Amino acid sequence: MRHFAAFLLREQPRIAEAIDALTAKLPGYVRPAAVYALSTGGKRLRPALTVLCARSLGYSENDVYRLGATVELFHVATLLHDDILDNANTRRAHPATHCKFGVPRTLLSADAMVAHAFRTLSETNDPRFMRCLTSAVIGTADGEIMEIEAQGSTSGGLAAYTTIIEGKTACLLRAACELGALCAGAAASDLTAISDYGRNLGMAFQIADDALDFSLENTTGKPEGGDLRESKFTPPIAYYVESLSPEKRRSFLARFASRSFSDTEIRTLVKEIRDGGFQERTLRLADAYLDAASLSLRSLTAPPDKHAEKAREALAEAVAFVRDRTA
Amino acid sequence: MRHFAAFLLREQPRIAEAIDALTAKLPGYVRPAAVYALSTGGKRLRPALTVLCARSLGYSENDVYRLGATVELFHVATLLHDDILDNANTRRAHPATHCKFGVPRTLLSADAMVAHAFRTLSETNDPRFMRCLTSAVIGTADGEIMEIEAQGSTSGGLAAYTTIIEGKTACLLRAACELGALCAGAAASDLTAISDYGRNLGMAFQIADDALDFSLENTTGKPEGGDLRESKFTPPIAYYVESLSPEKRRSFLARFASRSFSDTEIRTLVKEIRDGGFQERTLRLADAYLDAASLSLRSLTAPPDKHAEKAREALAEAVAFVRDRTA
Repeated sequence: MRHFAAFLLREQPRIAEAIDALTAKLPGYVRPAAVYALSTGGKRLRPALTVLCARSLGYSENDVYRLGATVELFHVATLLHDDILDNANTRRAHPATHCKFGVPRTLLSADAMVAHAFRTLSETNDPRFMRCLTSAVIGTADGEIMEIEAQGSTSGGLAAYTTIIEGKTACLLRAACELGALCAGAAASDLTAISDYGRNLGMAFQIADDALDFSLENTTGKPEGGDLRESKFTPPIAYYVESLSPEKRRSFLARFASRSFSDTEIRTLVKEIRDGGFQERTLRLADAYLDAASLSLRSLTAPPDKHAEKAREALAEAVAFVRDRTA
Repeated sequence: MRHFAAFLLREQPRIAEAIDALTAKLPGYVRPAAVYALSTGGKRLRPALTVLCARSLGYSENDVYRLGATVELFHVATLLHDDILDNANTRRAHPATHCKFGVPRTLLSADAMVAHAFRTLSETNDPRFMRCLTSAVIGTADGEIMEIEAQGSTSGGLAAYTTIIEGKTACLLRAACELGALCAGAAASDLTAISDYGRNLGMAFQIADDALDFSLENTTGKPEGGDLRESKFTPPIAYYVESLSPEKRRSFLARFASRSFSDTEIRTLVKEIRDGGFQERTLRLADAYLDAASLSLRSLTAPPDKHAEKAREALAEAVAFVRDRTA
């Protein structure tokens, strides 16, 4: 993981600078909420992927940071919406933005972030950038809508789960990668390869996240077993249900459907799922997607120079990064 | 008003068809909320302007309806946000969408409407369409944000009011007109003329709306004096304040700033503003913008054929339509 970790670290200041430049354009009334929301979150995986995908195809200009920043702004705007919809009080162990700034200001802030992300892309004069993000926006909205619709239901099984996470998570990681490839003027086959890489990495990212929900090592700041609490049918839960006797299964599914587990039951279930090896089985599902991501990467046809070679190594290591993350 | 009223009437089915085609693409979970929100609202002024502006420059194809529909979807999405932010229970005498479908579904519905509007424009492959709507989206968000920020304040006077309504209302009417002109392949000077027409029409539209807020003939379904209740500083209120003695003015401004008028006081104030002729003075302000709109229209340089001539007459009559509306 040397290259990817080093890359993430090295690029943080330039990514932060591009995000700050975009945020500076927001109206004063909503800017503090946006700055706060952007400051509490993460490792900037999405813009890093945009930059890395462009570099992997030999692109050396710095306007690619601005593209990556648009993806991060959209991503954080969706988190703001999610937290409002879920009535969440915290995000990554910090007070949720709407708890600090109120719902109206947070909503308007998210609107402004999305609008400015779109404007930045429309300024490129290349409609493919806009199409890329609008598709991701629609996919993300569709995925979130399906997820809410499916709460408590297990009838769609893991097929429904796959469709949901393809929308809510993989879509935007794919778009982050595609924007980089488009920026580098990728040939059609390389664009497809990068797009597949991003999609598969995104699927694995979400699946690993859903395994993490039952983990003792869960350092995301979220309480364990959140998906049980919210009756979201994820792989560890699906595998657990499979392992139950018909009697126990019926009783579990009824409680799951009515969202009526007590805190004590949740704690017991989390332990059973952890001890039953269902997280490991979930990570093997993630591995299948990560293998596909690695394969896509190896199918790139543009001959790499030394810098592009390094970027491809880092992208290959991003796979391990997703596999092994604990937060 | 023969031409404009006839045009609005004649075009309703084709505009409705284009809106339905766009709405059909929304995910099933949020579609009913979108259909409901779209069904309770209005005369489709914005898409009608898009079509009419294209026709006024000799464009005869029907793909312009799709462009108009994107503006309407965005417009209705902003109304959904407004009603959530304002905690409104009704919209045009019907229950507000979030009261019928809940806040989460309504928010997701608005997100999906905006995303699909953007996608439709991005499919044109001409970045100018996207830039046009994204500018309007940013302008609208900025205007709404400034309006909330300014509530209770009178320090910016009518200059602040002008900036606010240019964002929250005129921006999107201008974009509706511009999309039509872009679709018709307008020359630069005609594009500017159409853009100015839309902006001025939009300014007048909002100013007339703010006069209507004190009207006995107010048939919008909104209670009279809403702007006093919400401490929004509009022209009728500004003119009323000007007319007061220093003593009375101080007392009014203190109550306005603290949003503490009782229902009885509101009723008295509405009557005083109505009887004081401040609505008429407000409509004269609207007239100044309507004159500018008419002037812009006359500066079009593309020689019109018979159909374009009729469309220009209808646009000229839209000015009177805005002036005389009561709902």
